[in-house]
Amino acid sequence: MNKNRLRACLMAGVFLSFGLIASAANAQSGGHDNLLTAIQQKAGEWMSPARTYDAQRFSPLDQINAGNVGKLQVAWTFSTGILRGHEGAPLVIGDVMYIVGPFPNTVYALDLNNDGKILWKYEPNQDPNVIPVMCCDTVNRGLAYGDGKILLHQADTTLVALDAKTGKVSWSVKTDDPSKGATGTDAPFVFGGKVFVGVSGGEFGVRGWVSAYALADGKQIWRAYSEGPDSDLLVDPAKTTVLGKPVGPDSSLKTWQGDQWKIGGGDTWGWYGYDPKLNLLYYGSGNPSTWNPSQRPGDNKWSMTIFARDADTGMAKWVYQMTPHDEWDYDGVNEMILADLDIAGKAVPALVHFDRNGFGYTLNRETGELLVAAKFDPVVNWASGINMDKASPNYGRPILDKKYSTEEQDVNHTGICPAALGSKDEQPAAYSPDTKLFYVPTNHVCMDYEPFRVSYTAGQPYVGSTLSMYPPPGQSNMGNFIAWDATTGKIVWSDPEQFSVWSGALATKGGVVFYGTLEGYLKAVDAKTGKELYKFKTPSGIIGNVMTYEHAGKQYVAVLSGVGGWAGIGLAAGLTKPNDGLGAVGGYAALTSYTALGGSLTVFALPQ
Amino acid sequence: MNKNRLRACLMAGVFLSFGLIASAANAQSGGHDNLLTAIQQKAGEWMSPARTYDAQRFSPLDQINAGNVGKLQVAWTFSTGILRGHEGAPLVIGDVMYIVGPFPNTVYALDLNNDGKILWKYEPNQDPNVIPVMCCDTVNRGLAYGDGKILLHQADTTLVALDAKTGKVSWSVKTDDPSKGATGTDAPFVFGGKVFVGVSGGEFGVRGWVSAYALADGKQIWRAYSEGPDSDLLVDPAKTTVLGKPVGPDSSLKTWQGDQWKIGGGDTWGWYGYDPKLNLLYYGSGNPSTWNPSQRPGDNKWSMTIFARDADTGMAKWVYQMTPHDEWDYDGVNEMILADLDIAGKAVPALVHFDRNGFGYTLNRETGELLVAAKFDPVVNWASGINMDKASPNYGRPILDKKYSTEEQDVNHTGICPAALGSKDEQPAAYSPDTKLFYVPTNHVCMDYEPFRVSYTAGQPYVGSTLSMYPPPGQSNMGNFIAWDATTGKIVWSDPEQFSVWSGALATKGGVVFYGTLEGYLKAVDAKTGKELYKFKTPSGIIGNVMTYEHAGKQYVAVLSGVGGWAGIGLAAGLTKPNDGLGAVGGYAALTSYTALGGSLTVFALPQ
Repeated sequence: MNKNRLRACLMAGVFLSFGLIASAANAQSGGHDNLLTAIQQKAGEWMSPARTYDAQRFSPLDQINAGNVGKLQVAWTFSTGILRGHEGAPLVIGDVMYIVGPFPNTVYALDLNNDGKILWKYEPNQDPNVIPVMCCDTVNRGLAYGDGKILLHQADTTLVALDAKTGKVSWSVKTDDPSKGATGTDAPFVFGGKVFVGVSGGEFGVRGWVSAYALADGKQIWRAYSEGPDSDLLVDPAKTTVLGKPVGPDSSLKTWQGDQWKIGGGDTWGWYGYDPKLNLLYYGSGNPSTWNPSQRPGDNKWSMTIFARDADTGMAKWVYQMTPHDEWDYDGVNEMILADLDIAGKAVPALVHFDRNGFGYTLNRETGELLVAAKFDPVVNWASGINMDKASPNYGRPILDKKYSTEEQDVNHTGICPAALGSKDEQPAAYSPDTKLFYVPTNHVCMDYEPFRVSYTAGQPYVGSTLSMYPPPGQSNMGNFIAWDATTGKIVWSDPEQFSVWSGALATKGGVVFYGTLEGYLKAVDAKTGKELYKFKTPSGIIGNVMTYEHAGKQYVAVLSGVGGWAGIGLAAGLTKPNDGLGAVGGYAALTSYTALGGSLTVFALPQ
Repeated sequence: MNKNRLRACLMAGVFLSFGLIASAANAQSGGHDNLLTAIQQKAGEWMSPARTYDAQRFSPLDQINAGNVGKLQVAWTFSTGILRGHEGAPLVIGDVMYIVGPFPNTVYALDLNNDGKILWKYEPNQDPNVIPVMCCDTVNRGLAYGDGKILLHQADTTLVALDAKTGKVSWSVKTDDPSKGATGTDAPFVFGGKVFVGVSGGEFGVRGWVSAYALADGKQIWRAYSEGPDSDLLVDPAKTTVLGKPVGPDSSLKTWQGDQWKIGGGDTWGWYGYDPKLNLLYYGSGNPSTWNPSQRPGDNKWSMTIFARDADTGMAKWVYQMTPHDEWDYDGVNEMILADLDIAGKAVPALVHFDRNGFGYTLNRETGELLVAAKFDPVVNWASGINMDKASPNYGRPILDKKYSTEEQDVNHTGICPAALGSKDEQPAAYSPDTKLFYVPTNHVCMDYEPFRVSYTAGQPYVGSTLSMYPPPGQSNMGNFIAWDATTGKIVWSDPEQFSVWSGALATKGGVVFYGTLEGYLKAVDAKTGKELYKFKTPSGIIGNVMTYEHAGKQYVAVLSGVGGWAGIGLAAGLTKPNDGLGAVGGYAALTSYTALGGSLTVFALPQ
């Protein structure tokens, strides 16, 4: 079955019968690098933002293990030449490491055979006027690779493909308009000859989308918006399902007042997962704009939603909105982890997602069925749980506690947990198929939230709320690093951290899990118990994602340090007094006693 | 004998008979911290920029030695939050490390008991308009300590004393005027209740001076200019000597045309040495302004001069001008190392100085007698040697090669070695009393130099020459790290480096010598043979000075990385193409393949 035929089938609604086989075949063909095979065969490389398409951030390397990780030492280091928040993880393909920093998004190709000598450097020439429309620091979440190209989504929404050998621009395409507040911060995602990217701008009323571009030449293949008419959404009213039922016509339009969906947010700046057998792409959409809920009545679909889309056509197979009519800025963009789990004796192709709203969701990734939804931080109070009664008209919706509603504007709503930056933000969790546990970097923060009326002006902040953030009353830790059983929705162990854990986790075959802290520590803990086995103070706070690779027979662990991001914006922007300028800084002001701005790669290995 | 009495004696000309004993007694008294004793007793601390007053940069620590240095690993790191060139060395007093970065000269006190947690931070509020008058990157060469105070000479020429425990400002005083091009870049020098500082600004016609300020309250005690009337110079025409003879009246004035001395440079941005027995302070003065020699006929005294001054009064005991009527910008500010040497069977209280002009000088530091003067880079060609014939009227003067004179303006004088940044710039050498060798980080660079007429405007560049720098013809290395025998003026061994070695050296009792490279390597070599024993790639190029300390029974080695300074200004200011903007960048443009801007401390130790 060729692609056109497949697409025709989809349109004709016969997807369910042929889709699985057809799309798997499609992912394996096409004359491009067969990334799937390459990733499976090259355990020592790191070719995709989360290494594998299942987004497990698990490495089969085991040279570094629970028994010897305490002897880890720094092998080499590299300064990116840029301060501010360094999110994302390096890529390693062959003998070359690729890294990118925050604005201006300089990309380096570093020679692993020569202590990181710079093979090439790509310095985008970007208008600095994009900086003021980057909501939460000038971050970039990393690069992608495919078919000999390195993909970068620049702050100014230029998607650029660089020749991996030379750094020369192969093609570039503008994905959106920064003058309206749209920016590029996400790591592209590549497979099957396509590059997938989304857009940031929920604080500027930018309508979210995800697009597929041709890896060969940058031509746009499809674009699916988070809100708007069905033709913009790429949903089939009859075939696209929500919790097992068709979404029906105008599923988004009828949840917005008038044309509000046009400036309705639902941005798409997070992470992707992909199932090659189902040919489904998974990602989440962010907050509806503005943050003032009383200005936008309705469920505001499909903001705050998990999408499962056909990778070739963009057509949604299923959707699930976690936080209808958001009142707290609980973006739904966090990572989607694919894992085959055993739930109550049944093998389930699961999708696991730790949402900003504080609930960890386990769904059947083929059908979108909701299997588990439980708080991964006990402090969560805006909802008591998720309605799991399939017979209820509120099935799948959060059971709200009216006390923490922010519907009334010009009132300071206090004591809401979690804070706007969620029980977890973009910092991605990891999964170990050995322990069958998810390792989740979390925030442990509450807030006061005061919405106010705001008018929309293109390119101007469209936030409509002030907020103040602080640790849960009577507690001092603003974060925990937890192990989670997604089959039961239970915390298995929890390591408290003084500040939110804003670094992505790494699980390894060696029985060790790695993460970084805002003070700057790289930590290694036992995957089974959470016991700390190693820590090292890197130059600056860590909000990057830990990765591992093998070179010349030796396993390395690497992470970018460089404090910033939302939790570190206080330091990054020089706001270090509580509530100095940005209430959002809150309890993170104490970070100034631990670390300063930076931008460095630190690479670890066992001694010779 | 009290201080007033001492001063009276000096004025009366009886210095030679009483001075030695009197001033030694004075250095030991005075109610201040007895730094001399403290430094001698606390081998594990680093209280003064070069650790000891003799500026040997030698540590008696030997836990890290030639046998085990290969196992060195990184213990902890710290980002300063500032990019650009990081010169100077950390101080360690007790359990606290003190560091300072380039403009805006933020000072950190780091807790050695807690992985460098920030105990306090001092952030000067400086006018950024000082940046354009900082000739060669926005560097600062470090802090000094005395009497519970941390001393900082800010870029804006504010000398500030901070409480070492709290970081609170104890006092501050303005030493000069940045609006005329004067800046503070030097590390203060403290002893006997005084703080000694000088000034930068040779490229802006700033007249150089060194001052002593009271450590207690910042009151100026004396100021001695490099040029001008005898009363400004603090010379005694009859008693101050040059090569054993009195300097005579108006020794400076008569070597300048008219009032040119008022904008004559001779700045004082380098390092100090001090002999407590002689109570003599040693330092050098920089280039005469402008760089166009035809505009300033005469010897331009006392630019390019070593001064030996009484620390209490500032009165010069002797002077020696190394490069009369400079035609090449060969500043004389490099470090003055005090060592007791055996020269031809005679014990000599020596002063050893490696000048920008490419000659290594050994003098008797008590008398100013010139003992040895020899090229420490064979490529030096502007002079064939130094006239050592005491009977000659040119005794002590360089024997010039007219071919490399730059006297004729608007002509491009080519092939001059060394380049303007010298066979060595400010990067200080070290001395080991064990091997009796000096370890010298050197440049190996030549230049073309084209002087042009320039008019003086206060606060505007007053350079009057363009230049282009490159490795010596047919050679690829732009630097060497050498061992030097100062008793004979011979190179004992020489390790070539691709780029100039712009980091200060450290010699240790462990038989290991450390230095950093512009690519970012910290290197350890065998003190006897120069054999490389260890290297590690720090985040950015190293122009800081390596130091060592002991904490809780363990020896550490620390260095700031952060490429910049003159050699790295190309990277620091974004000029990375050869001759892009600043011809001075020249061959250093290739640095862009090895490192990027940064600002990090890296601390090393042996494994547990």
